[in-house]
Amino acid sequence: MTRLATFSDAKGPRLGAVLEDGRILDLAATGGLPADMLSLIDAGPGALAAARALAAAPPAAGVLPAGSYTLLAPVPRPRRNVFCVGRNYMDHVAEGDRTRGITQSELPKFPQFFTKAPETVIAPEAPIPPHTGVTEWLDYEVELACVIGREGTNISREDALSHVFGWTIGNDVTGRELQRRYGQWFKGKSLDRSCPLGPWIVPADELDALNTGIRCFVNGEKRQDSHTSKMIFDVREIIHQLSLGFTLRPGDVIITGTPEGVGYAMQPPRTLKPGDVIRCEIDGIGTLTNTVAES
Amino acid sequence: MTRLATFSDAKGPRLGAVLEDGRILDLAATGGLPADMLSLIDAGPGALAAARALAAAPPAAGVLPAGSYTLLAPVPRPRRNVFCVGRNYMDHVAEGDRTRGITQSELPKFPQFFTKAPETVIAPEAPIPPHTGVTEWLDYEVELACVIGREGTNISREDALSHVFGWTIGNDVTGRELQRRYGQWFKGKSLDRSCPLGPWIVPADELDALNTGIRCFVNGEKRQDSHTSKMIFDVREIIHQLSLGFTLRPGDVIITGTPEGVGYAMQPPRTLKPGDVIRCEIDGIGTLTNTVAES
Repeated sequence: MTRLATFSDAKGPRLGAVLEDGRILDLAATGGLPADMLSLIDAGPGALAAARALAAAPPAAGVLPAGSYTLLAPVPRPRRNVFCVGRNYMDHVAEGDRTRGITQSELPKFPQFFTKAPETVIAPEAPIPPHTGVTEWLDYEVELACVIGREGTNISREDALSHVFGWTIGNDVTGRELQRRYGQWFKGKSLDRSCPLGPWIVPADELDALNTGIRCFVNGEKRQDSHTSKMIFDVREIIHQLSLGFTLRPGDVIITGTPEGVGYAMQPPRTLKPGDVIRCEIDGIGTLTNTVAES
Repeated sequence: MTRLATFSDAKGPRLGAVLEDGRILDLAATGGLPADMLSLIDAGPGALAAARALAAAPPAAGVLPAGSYTLLAPVPRPRRNVFCVGRNYMDHVAEGDRTRGITQSELPKFPQFFTKAPETVIAPEAPIPPHTGVTEWLDYEVELACVIGREGTNISREDALSHVFGWTIGNDVTGRELQRRYGQWFKGKSLDRSCPLGPWIVPADELDALNTGIRCFVNGEKRQDSHTSKMIFDVREIIHQLSLGFTLRPGDVIITGTPEGVGYAMQPPRTLKPGDVIRCEIDGIGTLTNTVAES
């Protein structure tokens, strides 16, 4: 499996490929490849193939030891807001409805799109601010993240996956009472540093991301445990709908909704607290771990 | 009044100041100033003062004749999505409620924030696509646009206007049935080229933008005619609320809601058609005119 990453050390942030043993191949230095992920995506299939070939047979000179580098978000700063889908797993719709006293859930007929600002994106292991004084109800949401590789408008369901560059993991950290209070979700969804993303990108054709396990743990306790096949609108439908009259561009990040098990729907409800460790997992990608900071 | 613009001619897009008589001062060439609007905003108050002084006493050598240039949107491509406020004029809330059979309107207690992608921004006079096949209900919304000049988080109401770089006009073109169908408003609000912006930026302290007339005409027929003092949440409150736990940055564009008179609330409802000319006016800024393209 190829793991395309953005990493940093004393030489600054650049493009790499994480190897099975935790070492990293410095792709920017080794391969005459673009120096950063967005440029690699822009460079098209040839550049991806070159990166993949190098990662499969890494030249020893370009490999840096585990522990000598830090992972950043694979796309550290998307060029525009992260696109998000709400209420996209049936059991999550039902648990949300229950908190409002609705027992017979009506499933959304169309995906509910909203956004998070580019600067919400943070690295694996980076601290999530508790936003004390702004929200009393910080919550986690593990989500499959899709990175667009090829521009398109009015993309058909059939063609949708050919526009995907690769897959990673997102944590759609939410100020839950703000999400409700402001009616539209942007305010509760776009708190500073509220979108952990990573740990790396797996190229689109190396994972059947529409059929894989997705889980979230808080302090080691399993909170979310589902499967991407349970999405109401799968990635093909999301890309199709989002692209109607709206041009998707290389480097766009789409997070595709969270399954049941979020804190606000627990009995009793649970909020994230300073020191809480959130570990998001998607089978075939990896894990994304972040801690809520003390302040 | 200073009119800071982004303009283009054979030499390409750059920063200028439109003079009373329609000529333009090539600020980038004349003043040792930054070459584009975002760089001018980033450069801070000294650069703005220099631009203003030059515009007030334009050196003849730097002035280009009217008709020799084209205006672009003053911020042609914001660095992240345009921030928007919905349902922010009482009579617009009421007209929207009437279309849903609600006669007793409840005013929003908090501003409803959503976004439009950066690439929705288009220039004065640029064509708006009809989005045939995607929406059958294209609608206009004249709005006061606020450009942020200084970074801030948790900005108080009292300090809010000190974070404003200047004022311009936005037209929040909307696919009305999409706005409803998708629940969250991003989809209906972020069609390609659906955010005409301009014609220029008036510096913050040259206009009492919280107390000025705002109007919209379609093919010369007055459709919207209100006053920014009728906002439910004025610009100070919008900046305060939006910045809670969320850092506003120089160059951010916020459009602040539309008054009553939109097409979907007319009796009978009116939609925009190819060829329709939409003229948005705000007293103390100017006019922003765009036409719906044939295809």
